Amino acid sequence: MAEQKATNIVWHEGEVTAEERKANMGQTGATLWMTGLSGSGKSTVAVALEQVLLQRGKHAYRLDGDNIRHGLNKNLGFSPEDRDENIRRIGEVTKLFADAGVISICSFISPYKEAREMVRKLHDDGGQVFMEVHVNCPLDEAEKRDPKGLYKKARAGEIKGFTGIDAPFEAPESPEVELRTDQLSIEQSVEKLLDALASKGII
Amino acid sequence: MAEQKATNIVWHEGEVTAEERKANMGQTGATLWMTGLSGSGKSTVAVALEQVLLQRGKHAYRLDGDNIRHGLNKNLGFSPEDRDENIRRIGEVTKLFADAGVISICSFISPYKEAREMVRKLHDDGGQVFMEVHVNCPLDEAEKRDPKGLYKKARAGEIKGFTGIDAPFEAPESPEVELRTDQLSIEQSVEKLLDALASKGII
Repeated sequence: MAEQKATNIVWHEGEVTAEERKANMGQTGATLWMTGLSGSGKSTVAVALEQVLLQRGKHAYRLDGDNIRHGLNKNLGFSPEDRDENIRRIGEVTKLFADAGVISICSFISPYKEAREMVRKLHDDGGQVFMEVHVNCPLDEAEKRDPKGLYKKARAGEIKGFTGIDAPFEAPESPEVELRTDQLSIEQSVEKLLDALASKGII
Repeated sequence: MAEQKATNIVWHEGEVTAEERKANMGQTGATLWMTGLSGSGKSTVAVALEQVLLQRGKHAYRLDGDNIRHGLNKNLGFSPEDRDENIRRIGEVTKLFADAGVISICSFISPYKEAREMVRKLHDDGGQVFMEVHVNCPLDEAEKRDPKGLYKKARAGEIKGFTGIDAPFEAPESPEVELRTDQLSIEQSVEKLLDALASKGII
């Protein structure tokens, strides 16, 4: 039952303030939304960026198909409604991470402009920072890389509705960052993202 | 285009390791799942605990109806299926926070044992820490407090299926922590949670 200990537990009414959160995390939360073709380099850059941010004492976390499609969104398929709901849920989760002061680095093909704009609006409405990153690699280069052999299958008709082959990729019109991964090294891509985060006052 | 800058960007193959994450956050991620009647004090304790953890340089974030029901789960109602899906999604999100190294403090009545055990299993399967906290306040005391006037409405039949009145609360059998909030001060409740986090090696 009630332990009688000397404690130094002090708190104030109401929630943790944005200033307290920022001081605690040493940064502002933000969502880096990396959109681009399969094979464009989203995950490669995301993995490198996360490591570099952590080395610098910042707090980041990657969200991608691996930890979303097998978890939160495992009950969604690939119908248009389910695709929208997939992105909506991810958007809401990234908003929570941003609110928690974490930089989430999201790698999703997310080919539809309307869906990405929905996520941006969610953040705008909540006062969180959303940065769209166009991981821009020409289709022929992405297809040449084909790290998972998916383009080959799509060309053979074994996968239907594959972005860039028989489904559109709606490129961002004014992304906060564009990474031409066919021209930039991974270091250079990470550097551009760090610069963008710094210029927004996130880190 | 490719900027030529001197950078010191170094990374390794593969993902951030658990050790790197722990060193970065100064803690292990974990989910504190506070279950209890409406008016039992879940949110009051959660708000105080979050502040105290942040004051101590730890990283915590609260999840509750306010930021979940109006966001991620706004397309869910109160049917049995939707209630289950509500808890499942929250469970998956807390798992992501734990994986990110954050301590999430969750305040949900979550009256059904099976749903809470599902969340525990999600964490166990992923190797994340789940701690069930029974915020245990006798019904008559919670009803006397009635901070939102909900018991009064439930007694008047204006709210149906209200936990403790005409819907069951299935108390945890062996929660990691039990807080008798009718007997403990807020300081004492927070102290018990800090002790529990420390004894698990989280903080």
